[in-house]
Amino acid sequence: MMMGADVENGNLGPYQDRPRTFPNMRSKPYAPLMFRILRGINVRVLVILLLLGFGYVFYIGASTSPIIVFVFTVCIVSFLLSIYLTKWVLTKDEGPPEMVQISEAIRDGAEGFFRTQYGTISKMALLLALVILSIYLFRNTTPQQEASGLGRATSACITVAAFLLGALCSGVAGYVGMWVSVRANVRVSSAARRSAREALQIAVRAGGFSALVVVGMAVVGIAILYAAFYVWLEVDSPGSMKVTDLPLLLVGYGFGASFVALFAQLGGGIFTKAADVGADLVGKVEQGIPEDDPRNPAVIADLVGDNVGDCAARGADLFESIAAEIISAMILGGTMAQRCKIEDPSGFILFPLVVHSFDLVVSSIGILSIRGTRDSGVKAPAEDPMTILQKGYSITIVLAVLTFAGSTRWLLYTEHAPSAWMNFSLCGLVGIITAYVFVWITKYYTDYKHEPVRTLALSSSTGHGTNIIAGVSLGLESTALPVLVISISIISAFWLGHTSGLVDETGSPTGGLFGTAVATMGMLSTAAYILTMDMFGPIADNAGGIVEMSQQPENVREITDVLDAVGNTTKATTKGFAIGSAALASFLLFSAYMDEVSSFAREPFKQVDIAIPEVFIGGLLGSMLIFLFSAWACAAVGRTAQEVVKEVRRQFIERPGIMDYKEKPDYGRCVAIVASASLREMIKPGALAIVSPIVVGFLFRVLGHYTGHPLLGAKVVAALLMFATVSGILMALFLNTAGGAWDNAKKYIETGALGGKGSDSHKAAVTGDTVGDPFKDTAGPSLHVLIKMLATITLVMAPVFL
Amino acid sequence: MMMGADVENGNLGPYQDRPRTFPNMRSKPYAPLMFRILRGINVRVLVILLLLGFGYVFYIGASTSPIIVFVFTVCIVSFLLSIYLTKWVLTKDEGPPEMVQISEAIRDGAEGFFRTQYGTISKMALLLALVILSIYLFRNTTPQQEASGLGRATSACITVAAFLLGALCSGVAGYVGMWVSVRANVRVSSAARRSAREALQIAVRAGGFSALVVVGMAVVGIAILYAAFYVWLEVDSPGSMKVTDLPLLLVGYGFGASFVALFAQLGGGIFTKAADVGADLVGKVEQGIPEDDPRNPAVIADLVGDNVGDCAARGADLFESIAAEIISAMILGGTMAQRCKIEDPSGFILFPLVVHSFDLVVSSIGILSIRGTRDSGVKAPAEDPMTILQKGYSITIVLAVLTFAGSTRWLLYTEHAPSAWMNFSLCGLVGIITAYVFVWITKYYTDYKHEPVRTLALSSSTGHGTNIIAGVSLGLESTALPVLVISISIISAFWLGHTSGLVDETGSPTGGLFGTAVATMGMLSTAAYILTMDMFGPIADNAGGIVEMSQQPENVREITDVLDAVGNTTKATTKGFAIGSAALASFLLFSAYMDEVSSFAREPFKQVDIAIPEVFIGGLLGSMLIFLFSAWACAAVGRTAQEVVKEVRRQFIERPGIMDYKEKPDYGRCVAIVASASLREMIKPGALAIVSPIVVGFLFRVLGHYTGHPLLGAKVVAALLMFATVSGILMALFLNTAGGAWDNAKKYIETGALGGKGSDSHKAAVTGDTVGDPFKDTAGPSLHVLIKMLATITLVMAPVFL
Repeated sequence: MMMGADVENGNLGPYQDRPRTFPNMRSKPYAPLMFRILRGINVRVLVILLLLGFGYVFYIGASTSPIIVFVFTVCIVSFLLSIYLTKWVLTKDEGPPEMVQISEAIRDGAEGFFRTQYGTISKMALLLALVILSIYLFRNTTPQQEASGLGRATSACITVAAFLLGALCSGVAGYVGMWVSVRANVRVSSAARRSAREALQIAVRAGGFSALVVVGMAVVGIAILYAAFYVWLEVDSPGSMKVTDLPLLLVGYGFGASFVALFAQLGGGIFTKAADVGADLVGKVEQGIPEDDPRNPAVIADLVGDNVGDCAARGADLFESIAAEIISAMILGGTMAQRCKIEDPSGFILFPLVVHSFDLVVSSIGILSIRGTRDSGVKAPAEDPMTILQKGYSITIVLAVLTFAGSTRWLLYTEHAPSAWMNFSLCGLVGIITAYVFVWITKYYTDYKHEPVRTLALSSSTGHGTNIIAGVSLGLESTALPVLVISISIISAFWLGHTSGLVDETGSPTGGLFGTAVATMGMLSTAAYILTMDMFGPIADNAGGIVEMSQQPENVREITDVLDAVGNTTKATTKGFAIGSAALASFLLFSAYMDEVSSFAREPFKQVDIAIPEVFIGGLLGSMLIFLFSAWACAAVGRTAQEVVKEVRRQFIERPGIMDYKEKPDYGRCVAIVASASLREMIKPGALAIVSPIVVGFLFRVLGHYTGHPLLGAKVVAALLMFATVSGILMALFLNTAGGAWDNAKKYIETGALGGKGSDSHKAAVTGDTVGDPFKDTAGPSLHVLIKMLATITLVMAPVFL
Repeated sequence: MMMGADVENGNLGPYQDRPRTFPNMRSKPYAPLMFRILRGINVRVLVILLLLGFGYVFYIGASTSPIIVFVFTVCIVSFLLSIYLTKWVLTKDEGPPEMVQISEAIRDGAEGFFRTQYGTISKMALLLALVILSIYLFRNTTPQQEASGLGRATSACITVAAFLLGALCSGVAGYVGMWVSVRANVRVSSAARRSAREALQIAVRAGGFSALVVVGMAVVGIAILYAAFYVWLEVDSPGSMKVTDLPLLLVGYGFGASFVALFAQLGGGIFTKAADVGADLVGKVEQGIPEDDPRNPAVIADLVGDNVGDCAARGADLFESIAAEIISAMILGGTMAQRCKIEDPSGFILFPLVVHSFDLVVSSIGILSIRGTRDSGVKAPAEDPMTILQKGYSITIVLAVLTFAGSTRWLLYTEHAPSAWMNFSLCGLVGIITAYVFVWITKYYTDYKHEPVRTLALSSSTGHGTNIIAGVSLGLESTALPVLVISISIISAFWLGHTSGLVDETGSPTGGLFGTAVATMGMLSTAAYILTMDMFGPIADNAGGIVEMSQQPENVREITDVLDAVGNTTKATTKGFAIGSAALASFLLFSAYMDEVSSFAREPFKQVDIAIPEVFIGGLLGSMLIFLFSAWACAAVGRTAQEVVKEVRRQFIERPGIMDYKEKPDYGRCVAIVASASLREMIKPGALAIVSPIVVGFLFRVLGHYTGHPLLGAKVVAALLMFATVSGILMALFLNTAGGAWDNAKKYIETGALGGKGSDSHKAAVTGDTVGDPFKDTAGPSLHVLIKMLATITLVMAPVFL
């Protein structure tokens, strides 16, 4: 604070001479509905209600399994920790009034868009819930359901309830990510005036808060559903459902989560990149004003975009990654435990929940290990923020390996196969190593310290065209190593599981698929820390924007620039991680889908034979779906950016005073235009993703019916799913890596290489960066979600194809 | 000629004042080996030898089947017709000496590159032949082979001989395409000084010559092999091979053809686009001289590229398309005839040969229908060349429908199922319609008369970045309709075949797959005419270049410009056609592969179940192969273009007189640099394509052996093949369409729209065009060949995976 006052009172150089910014950036104050309700309730009443609720949940948990109690306890502790982290972040000062103003304008824009966007999404979710309800009321029941006396109505209610809860939790996860980010950004900016280390710590803790909430909510939501169904349906008592069939009832939760995440990512992704591209095209290129300049009417929209596109959407994305992966692993665990006739299968079923409970614990330690060294003054040599974050990651990963091994011994030990837990530990290790290698590969292809980005930058020196060709080649090439790594890890985890000693009644090994599931869990066993690093990116980016807009001195900008660059790297690596886990989770959900179809159709469904023409066509359509979806996502950004360009041009013409800081630009209008355009544009690709598997499955079901080909619809959908997964992984890797590499090639040239800023090479590199924007922040991340959404939608909609 | 003299003697306007071009463009004279040998032989001796050869072939054919005699006769007639067409083209005048000089320089460059390239390719082919020989000497024999007493050595010799013959024919096909194109280009330029119509006619007849040779050679090569094996192995006599197993012996021919075509397309594609991009970057952008200006040292390399990249490579490409499709259809026909116990299966087996014989007949009529109206003077209103070509296409297609129906009645009538031939006629119609719709869709997405290219052009007005984003979206989106069309045509052809009434011993319908094969034949039933239109493109393009380089008057340029624009459209549509037929042919070869594996493994191999992790990984690797191959092909163009840029810059610095026409640029050095660079660069992607399926299959075979999983290698390779086919189709459609659309968006702006030539929109559009170059002329067409090469390599290398 001493330092801060020092900076504030003087030494501002040329910045003091001219007006720093416009008064009252805020378009109109707005408090979200949820907050108004919460504010209306007395705090004590709320606490008492919460305690009562938790008590009841604990009671149910205790009557289910002690493991559930453990999971609940860890989640509650981490929620308490996350409350501590928020309080800690919120006690930090918000800096001078001009910063507060900008921050409030961003907050209003983000919360306004969030409200409208989630309004639209919730209407669609309710509609879909009705569709699911009607389908389930008319669908056949499975033998398991009949045995347990689970009627159609009950089954329909369970699925719809799970779907809605998943959708709600996913929405809350997104909201939390955005809520903290719009509050932390200004505090990071303010802290950057004092010390880089403190700014880093605030950004990390704010990211940590939402990471803990997102992961904790995914775990606790599934645990509550599991416990509630267990008690309600009197599972494991004679004449009712077996515990091993219980996880299949949870798939609605995963579908709800991925449904919301898809639209959140699409809408947010279109918003952020349309605003970014539009602001740059008029501001930087036509008017020649710097990035994040307060005179640009689209600048607030751009900063809002970072919050809704990166924070909110990525929160929802990782939430549904974890939910989908937990549910698919639980299903596989249950199926395997049943086949192997393990007496107490709950360990195998609840294993994923425990892994993520430990994830919360070890990630919290990692987050807290990053400390602001308040004692060392500003003179102390600054440490590279990336090194600090990496140190925290190393601590987390070492602890994760240890706790993972402990969990396997605790839950996966069985007398049938005494050494199985060791094999599964190794599977987890395979997953953790895979995650690490994925992060390394993404860094290699997108960091300008390495060969690929340098070559890309060099190709900018011969023009725009060669830069794009080189970037496209780089992106396409970068798919090879991750695919090889995924292949090796699937095979090795499968064979570790296969040879674990777990055998079914006929004596044949059955643990293979569960081994893959355990590897996926290993990969996600540090998810909360990864998510923290990811959330760190947009917060730092926003803080940089606020610093720039409020015209802070050079040394403050330098601090936020470094943080921003680190944030870019962590954002890129997290995408590698997200796509790797999506690939594995999808593969697991696929086998759950086959089990589900088999139990509905009452006949074995073990094979998806692509030598059958219709099945082959299903695959062709699946891959095509990925190409079309990517096309529409990219085109949406292009179209929306055009609207921003028109509006910004109009404002510059109609309000000539803007350029001299005499007239205030209408930020709100740009935000409103981008918001309404992105809401409109997100519908087409989103609807494509949801409708096409259902339509294809239904058409081929009808065709199969008339041509005497049973299960044709289900088989075609299976092929569609697998081909879409494969093409989706490759396309997402291509889009993310190419985008990241273009971005960093530009940054590399901006460090002064190849002629530096303003040179022809730089112009070509800017073109590459613009092209990369919708690739890496709209189409790419939407594909992660799409892959998992397809896997869950086919599972929930299976009755339509039969 | 009267008109030509008139133009030559005067009316040259400003062009007469300055030196037109450099004396002696020719680097060094060169006569290809083949020609030197042919020249050494007495013509009469040659004719007698040929007649003797044909007599012997006829004798063998006659002792095989009357159908073979029919095929031979048609092929010989069309060879005679093609000789007539060449003579007709060669009697046309070559124009003034400056044209001849340029043409000779192009001819030398093209023939020089061809020689070196095919030298390298033939060495690789011989090496591969040795590998195949050694594999086949150690492989197991099939029950069919044992029954017919076909030993390992015989089987190995047959496969290797077929492979080498296929490779040789493919090479000759490429050579013929280039040979006529380097001779026709200058004659078209010269004729353009007289009349547009005559120029068109020469280009069409030159293209027609190579089309007839390419298709005829594919047909006659297979017919000779079939007849020779038939007689040699005493097929159908007691104790020897059955005729229905004969077609499987021909797969080596298809593999040889696709092997050569792959390297021809890669090398030629890299050559043409590296020279093009390199010449443009220095000439147009840095020095500001027009395209095809004689002062640009890389201009001859660019014109050479059109011949080696478009003519030679596309000849080899379509040759192997037809060969692969004929062989796969023959295999399927044989298998089906055997299952249905048809007494005389030769009709079903030889059907594809007859279809292509009729293709030669109807296409010849189409080609001859395009007449130069010598009587109408230059004053007659010029007809749009596209309309003339379309008229010829309509004639061809109507005749094709009629002859196709006739062929089905002749060969596919069987007493088992009297109406089957009608169903197969309809399958053929499905194929013809599919081809037509494909051509239409490609036109819709790449012609600037339609919405997509106009939107793309509009997006150029906001800069380079938005142009690229819009082009990528357009390309990705354009995959949707073709996939839907292919899906519908596969399904409808399959069900038409399925319900044809052909049943196997157990009474279940078996004609489905053969129906798809017949549809593929329908699609290719006008292949010779399509190839003519395709070859027309680069000849017109080259003629335009010669006219520009020899500084002809404006009205001559206008004529060649129109022909060039029409050539661009026909080139783009042919690519759509090529990818559609590749998709269908690959699907057929896939089922042939499964039959082959099954007969070697002596156990049924009916299913490729992608629910098995290893098989899924095979698919993942297959799709990845496509991405990596495309990356390397694009990157190769970028790297080679850089070398051209350096050389051209060096020449401009070291020979300052070039810009004033005082010093002659060293064209030969540019040609040599591009040639050696493209030969080097074609190895990496080519080797990837050939080695990876073999390595993957072998590794998983070993893995399967140790984990007790029989046929694992074969299954994984099957998945690799199917996923690669699907991804390859989509990627090729994306690359071709995006490239074509960018090219035409630029052309649209050059017509004066959106600011016209020199505006900022035009600059952005030029960037798009540069990016599109390696997409549409290197990576895209190489993928067509790759898809089919993968299908044939897996078939030939099947023993490695077992």
